[in-house]
Amino acid sequence: MLEEDLAYVAGFLDGDGCLMAQLVKRSGYLRGYQIRLSIVFYQKVQNIGHLEWLKAQFGDGYIRKRNDEMAEYTIVGLEPVGRILQRIYPHLRLKRKLAKLILQISRMPRKLTIDRYLEYCRLVDETAKLTYSKKRTTTVMNVIEYLEKHKV
Amino acid sequence: MLEEDLAYVAGFLDGDGCLMAQLVKRSGYLRGYQIRLSIVFYQKVQNIGHLEWLKAQFGDGYIRKRNDEMAEYTIVGLEPVGRILQRIYPHLRLKRKLAKLILQISRMPRKLTIDRYLEYCRLVDETAKLTYSKKRTTTVMNVIEYLEKHKV
Repeated sequence: MLEEDLAYVAGFLDGDGCLMAQLVKRSGYLRGYQIRLSIVFYQKVQNIGHLEWLKAQFGDGYIRKRNDEMAEYTIVGLEPVGRILQRIYPHLRLKRKLAKLILQISRMPRKLTIDRYLEYCRLVDETAKLTYSKKRTTTVMNVIEYLEKHKV
Repeated sequence: MLEEDLAYVAGFLDGDGCLMAQLVKRSGYLRGYQIRLSIVFYQKVQNIGHLEWLKAQFGDGYIRKRNDEMAEYTIVGLEPVGRILQRIYPHLRLKRKLAKLILQISRMPRKLTIDRYLEYCRLVDETAKLTYSKKRTTTVMNVIEYLEKHKV
């Protein structure tokens, strides 16, 4: 992928894309919550070819049509989000601080102590300040409560 | 300006910017209507620095704060829009067809016959199809009516 194309994608992400970190309740998880990272690009269904071009550049992720004439191209997961964001990062402007935090989270090791895990959960909380998220309800407090309740 | 920065701006314009051609009623104009070309970038007021960076790259245009916590950076006029768009054009993807039409309009000579002028007005109408504009009310028909009524 050309550096100019990466710069283009950075501009597109800054303009209309979404970059986020969330704590997601997961019944199968020992610590009750999963840290989810995602990059999402939106476009009218009639321009779905643009999302297909993006997907062809990065390989990962999936495209879905919503029921409001919009389509989304979503990349989820620490590893793919970290790998893709690393390439876009040098060209980002508006979402640069947020991207730096997301990159830090993406490097979370698979095995880590509860204290270290909670540090990553706090980084997720940090990102909410940068995305002006008003709907954010799950925070590190929920994770701590879960861990205490289940004596993990 | 680096080619990579132009690619970034193209991505940003494709994502969240606005490119348009309009017929605007003007009392001082012999032919009753002005062809107005504009490029507009939007951003939350708190990120106004991003619009200031864009303005510093291009020189032309002005930034204004709206009363809904949003700011706009607008470049208006055949000459500046044509000149700036020419540089972004090679990197555009979603707005490429629209940009090609706008560039064509931007080359309208100052002096031209009424028939040639109406051809440019028709190009403006063409752009409405590409911007999914529903509010577009002034078309070449209004210009023709004006010219007939005022015997221009």
